[in-house]
Amino acid sequence: MKYYIGVDLGGTNVRTLLVDENGESYSEVRGATEREQGPDYVCEKIIKQIESLDYSVCGGLKGVEGIGIGVPGPVDTVSGTMIMASNLPGFENYPICRKIKEKFGLPTFLDNDANVAGLAEACLGAAKDYATSYFITCSTGVGGAFVVDKKLISGGRGHAGEIGNMIIIPGGYKQGALNPGAVEGEISGTALTRKGQEAKGEDLVKHAGDVFKLAAEGDEACQKIADDFIDGFSTLLANIAHTIDPHCFVLGGGVFKSKDYFWDELVKQFNSKIHVGMRNHIPLLFKQIDDCGAVGAAMLPMSQLR
Amino acid sequence: MKYYIGVDLGGTNVRTLLVDENGESYSEVRGATEREQGPDYVCEKIIKQIESLDYSVCGGLKGVEGIGIGVPGPVDTVSGTMIMASNLPGFENYPICRKIKEKFGLPTFLDNDANVAGLAEACLGAAKDYATSYFITCSTGVGGAFVVDKKLISGGRGHAGEIGNMIIIPGGYKQGALNPGAVEGEISGTALTRKGQEAKGEDLVKHAGDVFKLAAEGDEACQKIADDFIDGFSTLLANIAHTIDPHCFVLGGGVFKSKDYFWDELVKQFNSKIHVGMRNHIPLLFKQIDDCGAVGAAMLPMSQLR
Repeated sequence: MKYYIGVDLGGTNVRTLLVDENGESYSEVRGATEREQGPDYVCEKIIKQIESLDYSVCGGLKGVEGIGIGVPGPVDTVSGTMIMASNLPGFENYPICRKIKEKFGLPTFLDNDANVAGLAEACLGAAKDYATSYFITCSTGVGGAFVVDKKLISGGRGHAGEIGNMIIIPGGYKQGALNPGAVEGEISGTALTRKGQEAKGEDLVKHAGDVFKLAAEGDEACQKIADDFIDGFSTLLANIAHTIDPHCFVLGGGVFKSKDYFWDELVKQFNSKIHVGMRNHIPLLFKQIDDCGAVGAAMLPMSQLR
Repeated sequence: MKYYIGVDLGGTNVRTLLVDENGESYSEVRGATEREQGPDYVCEKIIKQIESLDYSVCGGLKGVEGIGIGVPGPVDTVSGTMIMASNLPGFENYPICRKIKEKFGLPTFLDNDANVAGLAEACLGAAKDYATSYFITCSTGVGGAFVVDKKLISGGRGHAGEIGNMIIIPGGYKQGALNPGAVEGEISGTALTRKGQEAKGEDLVKHAGDVFKLAAEGDEACQKIADDFIDGFSTLLANIAHTIDPHCFVLGGGVFKSKDYFWDELVKQFNSKIHVGMRNHIPLLFKQIDDCGAVGAAMLPMSQLR
């Protein structure tokens, strides 16, 4: 059995796990990130968490094959640094991977949280029996991850899966620095909440789930928003399918808490928008692993060191 | 040195090559496909072409590692059959790969012509120094191919790269069985010719090149068509970039004969539509290998047997 360390570094909490190649967890340490203390402090905290794990199952750190770190935001996987770090100030270009690697003398890999979650689903979860899979999480933002033979396709600059910026409605809504009509501006949880509040006010719509709840109760304005969501999301899926024809999609994120409302229609519209040769051959699966950040991060060295 | 056989099976001609791992060609046989004679006849013709090659460089057929066949239309790469074969009647589900494999006792692989061309560019052409590449050909139709570490990502049903059916203008022009607003209906050579003829008549516009020629001469209607092409093509590139962040794109096909008119603006708009972290990091390259069908097909076994 091989053992790996996974670190889930978020803006609020940081969590470190010792897992085996089947994803079983043996020891865990977690705490507040305290990001305001800066990257050196946070890096030292990760080192202490790794040192504090109980390694009795593998006879100490020498029994560990490698370390993986998941972070929020795009990553340069070659240099092992974050390219943008809006939730972790100071981490842009900070050599976190090199520092951890030098400290422990173990192969160390960095990737973003959506990629890490997609890898966890591909290695251990919904897509574990599929040769390739495309993972999509739709909540505040929209992110993706393409996994081939249990290995992430991170891309030339670690931006594979940055599908929130794909254009689905040319000339559509412009959210922040994204393209007009980009996925995140049109069909993210944030977009659904915005549209719902414009139609029904902030008292009735607190989050995307309220839009689907009102739609189910017969509200026509919310039904229109939900219809546009299904149309847009099925276009996103179809466009990805025509680009790389994954063996399956794995879908998750906060918006899918309301999936009972839209799932069947989403599957139907997706299949109507893809080539006849693919139709009903690409299953849409629901994600299986909750809280997969640290487990998925531990799969990074497993995926790279085979 | 390793040697491979490549077969370029088209609707009009069929061509068989003996090449080495560097793509150098040693022997060639070509002839008319005579597709009207049916798949058994065409298959027998391919067998005769393979038998007719001069194998002196590698001491006979026993010195060959494998055979690759490129065909027009989507392929089930697992079963080695064509899924659709509008240019090769009778070849749908015909076991061409198995027949050739059994005849010669060599590993035999089938893929579609765009994938084969993309593989040739990745192994020997414009993308040979890049870890991953996305190839796009834009002429009568629009096709693509994703290559990772010199290996094609064909997808679950061999439809990776069927980007002609990606939606770039929701509710746009509906061409044949494709989605409304699909790439082929909006920005293929066929689409450009259609739009040009609608604006200027069939006397002035015979093909897509005429649209760009008239645009360069100052015709405002054709300038608008060209502008829409650049907008649509850059959206296609940006959407693929956000999906898999390739290390480069390789572009080719008949429409690119007019690239002097639109190349600089295409590069500019593409970069304006991708995440800041990718900007100016994904080169758009022009294809280098002409007539790459048979050479690319020969790369199929090389790519699979490593």
